[in-house]
Order: sequence, then C-alpha cells, then structure tokens
Amino acid sequence: MIGVVRHVYERYGFEPLETPAFENIETLLGKYGDEGNKLIFKILKRGEHEGSGEADLALRYDLTVPLARVIAQYQNELPRFFKRYQIQPVWRADRPARGRFREFYQCDIDAIGSTSPVVEAELIIAVCEILTRLGFQGFSLRLNHRVVLHGLLTAAGLAVSQHNDALVALDKLDKIGVDGVAREFATRGIDPAATNKCLELFESTGAEGSGDTLGRLEKIVPPGDPALANLREIVTLVETTASACRIRVDPSLARGLSYYTGAIMEAAVPDLAGSIGGGGRYDNLIGMFLGREVPACGFSLGLERIIVVMTERNMFPDSVEHGALDVMVTLWNGESRADALALAADLRRAGLRVEVYPDADKLGKQFKYASTRNVPFVAVVGDDERGRGEVTIKDLRSGTQQSVARAGTAAELAKILKND
Amino acid sequence: MIGVVRHVYERYGFEPLETPAFENIETLLGKYGDEGNKLIFKILKRGEHEGSGEADLALRYDLTVPLARVIAQYQNELPRFFKRYQIQPVWRADRPARGRFREFYQCDIDAIGSTSPVVEAELIIAVCEILTRLGFQGFSLRLNHRVVLHGLLTAAGLAVSQHNDALVALDKLDKIGVDGVAREFATRGIDPAATNKCLELFESTGAEGSGDTLGRLEKIVPPGDPALANLREIVTLVETTASACRIRVDPSLARGLSYYTGAIMEAAVPDLAGSIGGGGRYDNLIGMFLGREVPACGFSLGLERIIVVMTERNMFPDSVEHGALDVMVTLWNGESRADALALAADLRRAGLRVEVYPDADKLGKQFKYASTRNVPFVAVVGDDERGRGEVTIKDLRSGTQQSVARAGTAAELAKILKND
Repeated sequence: MIGVVRHVYERYGFEPLETPAFENIETLLGKYGDEGNKLIFKILKRGEHEGSGEADLALRYDLTVPLARVIAQYQNELPRFFKRYQIQPVWRADRPARGRFREFYQCDIDAIGSTSPVVEAELIIAVCEILTRLGFQGFSLRLNHRVVLHGLLTAAGLAVSQHNDALVALDKLDKIGVDGVAREFATRGIDPAATNKCLELFESTGAEGSGDTLGRLEKIVPPGDPALANLREIVTLVETTASACRIRVDPSLARGLSYYTGAIMEAAVPDLAGSIGGGGRYDNLIGMFLGREVPACGFSLGLERIIVVMTERNMFPDSVEHGALDVMVTLWNGESRADALALAADLRRAGLRVEVYPDADKLGKQFKYASTRNVPFVAVVGDDERGRGEVTIKDLRSGTQQSVARAGTAAELAKILKND
Repeated sequence: MIGVVRHVYERYGFEPLETPAFENIETLLGKYGDEGNKLIFKILKRGEHEGSGEADLALRYDLTVPLARVIAQYQNELPRFFKRYQIQPVWRADRPARGRFREFYQCDIDAIGSTSPVVEAELIIAVCEILTRLGFQGFSLRLNHRVVLHGLLTAAGLAVSQHNDALVALDKLDKIGVDGVAREFATRGIDPAATNKCLELFESTGAEGSGDTLGRLEKIVPPGDPALANLREIVTLVETTASACRIRVDPSLARGLSYYTGAIMEAAVPDLAGSIGGGGRYDNLIGMFLGREVPACGFSLGLERIIVVMTERNMFPDSVEHGALDVMVTLWNGESRADALALAADLRRAGLRVEVYPDADKLGKQFKYASTRNVPFVAVVGDDERGRGEVTIKDLRSGTQQSVARAGTAAELAKILKND
C-alpha cells in the first residue's frame, strides 16, 4: 500500500520528507485544542533535570504541525512552492480500540506556497488515483469550504460567537443525526428558528449533484462570494480533468481541526462509518511559527484504517505478501551445511527468496516446518543426490517431486515458480 | 539504500517486522548498562498521573530488546525458527554530533531458534551482499567469539572477576591503542605480566589470515574447545560459500553490549574510524523475559552512518534521486488551469513525474522556478499552441525547444527522457 502511495505522489511532483519523532513541546501544545493537548505523549527531561518531572519534548501528534515548523525554520532553503509527501507514524494517548491505535501511520501530502485552486484540485485527483489503484470502488470525496460554512451559519441567523459551537456539533452529524445536532444546538443556546434553518441547509444534500448544490448555495450567500467561487472552481477543475473522481459538495462537512481556513475535504468508502482521510487549506498555521502567513493545503490518509478495510474486504492481491518464501533448502547432516549454503546462494542469485533450515533434524521434521511456513518448494541434497550431481525438488502442495541437475536447479525452480 | 537492504534480506528468508516506538519502561531499563539507562528517552504518565512526574513508557533504544520482548510475548504464535528484518528508528539522548543523532535508523536482521553456525554464516553473507551491492569495496568483517575471548583472558592470567573490566578497555583498542589499553588495565589493578601477555595475544593480528589466527588461538585455549570450533566452522562456511566476503578473525574484537554470548562480529569500511554495523549471538536475552532460554543471533547496520559515508564518497547513482521531476507544466493564465491539469494527467498516465505550476505568473518566472528545481523539461500550452493543437516542450538544460502534437506529448516526452 505504501508503494502505491509513494508511486502516485511522486508522479504528482511531491518529494519525500521525514521529520523527527519528537518536537519541542511548545511546538505541539495549543495546536490541537484542549482535548488534543491531553492526548500528546510528553517526554521527560533528561540527566540532572529528570527529577523535575517536567517534559521538554513531545511525540508528534500529526504530520501537519511538524511540517509547518519545518517550513518556518527552513524557509530560506526551500523552493517557492514546496510539495512534500510524508509517511510516518504519529502518536496519540487515546484508549486503544478496534482500528484505533496509540501509534499509527499517516500518509500526508501538502503543497505550500500557493493559493491557487490548482493545489486543491491536484490533491483531490492524487488521492482519487490512490484509492482507485488500491481497488476501492465507489468511494466518495466530500468537499466544503470553511468560509462558505461560516457564511451559511450567518445566513441561518447564527451569531459569529456561536459558529465554533455549531461546527463542533455539525461535525458529529454523521454519528448523532439531525436530531442529535438539534439537541446540541439547543444546549448551546442557539435559538430554534436558526437551528431549523441551519439544519435545512445541511440536510437535503444526499443525492444532489455538486452543480446543483453549488447553485443552491449561490442563492444563500452574498452574490460573487469569493469562497463559493473558489469552491466552484475546484469542483470544475477536478470534474474536467478526472471525471472518475466522485466528488460531492457537502455543506455540512465541518472537519474538527481548528486550523483550516479554506476548502476542506474528506474521503469515505461505502459501508464504513467515518472517513479514511481528510484535509484542507490552512493558510494561517505556518504564520503561527513564522510571523508571516504562508498559504498551504494538505490531505492525510489513515494507513491502518485503510488496511483494516482492505483486509476485511480481501482487497490485497496474494502476490504482494511481503517476505513469503519461494523455497527452503533442507540440511542433510552437519557436514552438508556448506553444500546447503552454496545451493541457497545459487538460488538467491537467481532472485529467489530462500530459507536454509539451520539444524540437521530429521527430514520429516524439516518438511513439516516448511509446510507450516507455507513454503511451496523444498530442495533436498542428500548423500544420494550429491553422488549423482542432482537436487531433489519437492512441491509441498501437490506432494510431487523431481530430480534436477545441481547446476540447473536455480533456472529450473525459477521457471516453475514463474509459471506457478 | 533501504530498497537494497529489503531486497537482500527478503531473499535470505527474513520477514519484515515493525514494533511500537515505545515499550514499557521496565522492558528497556537494565538492558544497556548504566550509561545506556541514562540515554533512554522516558515518557511521562498521562492524564491524572501526569503530575506525578513519573515515566511509564520509554522510546526504544535499539531493535534487539523490543524483538526479545515480542518473541517472549508471542512465542506460541511464532514459527520454530523466526527470521525477521526490521528497519526503524531508535532514540538515544546522546549529545548530537557529526554522524551522531538522537534519532537514527537501524537495519537489523535476527534469526531466532537455532544454535547452528549456519545462522551466523547466513547473517554474515547477507551483510556482505548488501555492502557489495551498495558499492563498498574492500570492506571487512571482523569476527570473534565471546567465549573464546574469555578463554584468552584466562590463558593470559586474568581472574574471571577482571574480565569485564578488561573487555571494556579492549573495546577501545581502536581508539586508544595498545598503550592506552595497558594504562586502563593498570588503573583497574590487572598485573603487568598478565597485561603484557594479553596485549601480545591481541596485537599481532593485522595482516594474518583467518586460518593462521585460528591456528594460533588453538595453541592457547584448551584442545577441542567448542567455542573455537564454532568460530572455525563459521569461518569455513562463509569462506566456502561466499569467497568474496572478506572476514577476519580478530581476537581483540569485544563489542560493548553485555548480552552477547557467542560469536560477535563488526563491519568496517576502509578509512573510516569505527564500524558501520555489528552483531552477534545472544542466547540469554530472550530468557530474561521468558524465563527459558531461546537461542538468537543478529546483526545491525547503522543507516545514517552508511549514508554519510556513501554521500561523502559519491557512491549514490544519480538515477536513484527520489522525488526528482521529469517535467513541469506551465500555467498560461487563470483560464488555462483545466488544460494544464489535463496535460499533467496525460503525462502522469505515461509514468512521468510532473509538477503543475500553480499560479498564472509570467512565463519567465515559471521557467526560472523550474530551473531552480532542476526539472529538465517544461511544457507550455499557450493560446497559440492551443490553436494549433500543439504543446511546446523546452529542454531547460540545452535551451532548445520543439513543438509536438498535443495528443502525442506524453509518448514524445517519455521517449526523450528514456534516451536522455
């Protein structure tokens, strides 16, 4: 899966970047909200300061904030546009559960330095290509815009001071439904008329095409609204270039993180609650480190979540099983070790993945071990075989065996495996 | 480099394994000596216990101890022989210096479950193949045996209680020389006659072949010594199977870590102080977690150290530069965004790595940016080109340009790049 991600992202002009596992603790604190602060793993000071019980470093919580720190720190050495991908673990002190780990991988792409809608379009098209190559069919990419969202809330009659509360509630629309959101709005003192108007705007979007949704929104926000024009441009660019990308403008998409400033997006696959990735534009985050704003936009795929889905749906081709063995060379006795290693060397030179059974156990035991490891073939060089200059190759699945000339063993096995 | 390591290790039957970045703190403490304990990064307890200032987790310090923990924990689910490779970062709170980082990658292979010398031989042959494939010439692999080493110290007249002190001093022989070791021996109360005899054993091994060294040692240790026989068997297996492996028995090789119990080895390249990797047999370590002993042997390559050497010696082929771009598509104006993205999509479908310039800046500025990124080609679709159904391709290195049919651009560029 990582191979597919790398291959696609590199063809879109993204360069690999890795950042350290830990950052100075101040870099991370305050970037993920109160809940996030609690979930950050903090590292104790060392040496004479260990006794203080204080932390000075913290494990990275996502890949975006460390990237923003890197951009700010190396701004003079980076190109005007900086496009990087990063596939590394992040750590959150969540209670572990099915599909939720304290250590998990994120696959991020981010494009720094431009406000052009070409940036969002390329991120979306690249993500669609990855999901398609991984074998997902009928996935969808929901798209919204933070400024449009605020415009809609205002149009529905909410005060600006109520917007953040409303976004937090709306973010749970998937999970708690319209009634749940209405109750949360009530708890937070949003008046019923505004609540109803708001939910009306966000509810009726299920089967609507992106064009229709945009048309509907254009009647609500002020004419010529630049945020909505930006959203329309992104939709047009994606749909013109990559008609297979199924994007859907969803005015209710909120995305939890507070640092987004423009387009926001989320990818989902059918019959799976929640998303497998998401992202958006965050033009202010780098400014928190640098003092001047640098436009930026990114998308993050959740590796484990995608792997869980692909495993459950049997989407991994058999052939990608890493580390599988082609053949096991048996050991006839203690004196035949060098022979076994020499045969293994020949087979490996031909590109085969070879295990040498290390101990001079009985052959039956060696065969049984090979079966448990799912090795398709074993090679035996006993005293008889050695005398004849031959090797016996046994197919453990069919039980058949054949003798081949010692010198031609590698070629013969490579041929059999290729036709297998 | 990681690609080479993976490819070789998989052909030797090693399977990939990753372990979590942190372990319970008790798992790591006490495994690396007093100095090691101080260099472990410790993670503060979370939630209500954060205020205690205590640590319950710690970042892994190497890949061997976490592996031993995994073996002990999953012993019933693992095959009788378990061969894994692992390429992951480890963390040590060292003072950073040239080539010494607080976070660095180790590439480990370990074979669990057998005491056969086939295990050591295969580790050594695999490591030699990696170093050869990476382009190292004239590297050497020093080999010794902990039990032989103790036998030599005893034969030189050292008391068993002085062995550990002597090993710590001997480990620095490379750095402090014979005189330095003699001084350290004196400080630790080892008598001068024993010191002289000891240094005599260890000093005269520079140009000696492994066979001669083994012959010399056989006159010192008791006849039929199984440790020395084991060492000879490993040397024979490696030299018979892989004559290109330059191994050298070096009785002075000590290896710092205390958990080694049998053969120990260290790889070095000419004109570089210190090693680029090392390993050995540690038949007792898993027993510290499991309560019963499980034989094990491993080798660890230091990724950054090898990369530093390869970079300094210009050993990386140009073609492996990851993330390099093949072509940049320019943006004619705001209205041509969809055209630029469509051309990029065609080029990417042909396997090219393509960047789209996101902003409608002046062409000169776009070309200049492409030059700074070392992109060999730019593609221009201006209003003229669009009218003629063509694309202009400019070679930024020669300055030449040509017009090609829009539909054939991808094929044309792929052809040029292939012959480039």
